[in-house]
Amino acid sequence: MPSDTLVQQLAFLREIDRLKSVIRQSPLLDGSRKENSAEHSWHLAMYGLLLREHASSGVDSERVIKMLLIHDIVEVDVGDTPLHGGSSPTMQAELEHKAACRLFGLLPEPQGSEFLELWQEFEEGDSEDARFAKALDRVQPLIANVLTGGGTWSDGRVDLIQVLEKYGPTIRRGSPVLWSACEAMVREHFARDRPPSRTGSA
Amino acid sequence: MPSDTLVQQLAFLREIDRLKSVIRQSPLLDGSRKENSAEHSWHLAMYGLLLREHASSGVDSERVIKMLLIHDIVEVDVGDTPLHGGSSPTMQAELEHKAACRLFGLLPEPQGSEFLELWQEFEEGDSEDARFAKALDRVQPLIANVLTGGGTWSDGRVDLIQVLEKYGPTIRRGSPVLWSACEAMVREHFARDRPPSRTGSA
Repeated sequence: MPSDTLVQQLAFLREIDRLKSVIRQSPLLDGSRKENSAEHSWHLAMYGLLLREHASSGVDSERVIKMLLIHDIVEVDVGDTPLHGGSSPTMQAELEHKAACRLFGLLPEPQGSEFLELWQEFEEGDSEDARFAKALDRVQPLIANVLTGGGTWSDGRVDLIQVLEKYGPTIRRGSPVLWSACEAMVREHFARDRPPSRTGSA
Repeated sequence: MPSDTLVQQLAFLREIDRLKSVIRQSPLLDGSRKENSAEHSWHLAMYGLLLREHASSGVDSERVIKMLLIHDIVEVDVGDTPLHGGSSPTMQAELEHKAACRLFGLLPEPQGSEFLELWQEFEEGDSEDARFAKALDRVQPLIANVLTGGGTWSDGRVDLIQVLEKYGPTIRRGSPVLWSACEAMVREHFARDRPPSRTGSA
């Protein structure tokens, strides 16, 4: 007979399997399909594992990886919110908070409260760890878009200025080094994809 | 101009995106499709994050999570090897080692060597951390099979004894508590699915 603690933990692990069916806007790098939030969370955790030396200040790598593993779990209840979407941020934040309370509430205490607090810390984005985690959560889809010839930027008709404004501040705050590399990629991407001038020689 | 270190790290993170296209035998819990190795790795890392109190001895949770995040990366080159498959273990181990050297070799040093060693530690399964990580790598698909009415056991016509032999030793070594819970689930599953006796009253 398993303990109540284990029964609750296994119920949570069962519930979050549904994150594998939440589809994001970002494509896989081979362009074959869109990414789901579970595999995105794995990829982000790998970013966290490898890139901590580029954080703007000392971060606790273990906490960053934990945040990245759990940051999208609320999407089990509320789905993915595209970065270039038009939903109300306040209403979205309320829905996500309710989802976090329900989902992490499946866990035994104090584990449930610990994860809820860690998720809130990520959402608020004020701590050093949360800033770096949030930066990575922008870097990964930015790179996916660049490597797939535009990705969600093509679909949504997003231009260079919008990309710099949507991704820049969050990435720069967590890692100036990563933003420097990302900005160069983005500028090169939009320079390459700019239609040829109509006053050219052709 | 990003540093050589960052260029190498980003090349590795690009390469491992392909893990999202490696399809395993285990189903999602809603039965809609088979799981891929990237989302499996995320789910396993969540198992590691939540269940460390059930390890047979003290484990370093951060190392266990790292192992679980990287344990299947070799599949980018060699694909998934089903537990109930018939491939030669020696040949498979050689192919996986070659893949690990190529993939982790994309990383700057000493990061590449650190990850290769961590992957080898998981494969050997001798340390406390590796035993627990290996146990979780069996627990997650076992539960998926039970919750989907058989999963890979139905496809492969695997019986109770085979399940106890294939999963039991690895899970018990890493966590007697988890094996106790898993064994009860498995016995109940096979008792429920056993065809009715031909000498019954019907």
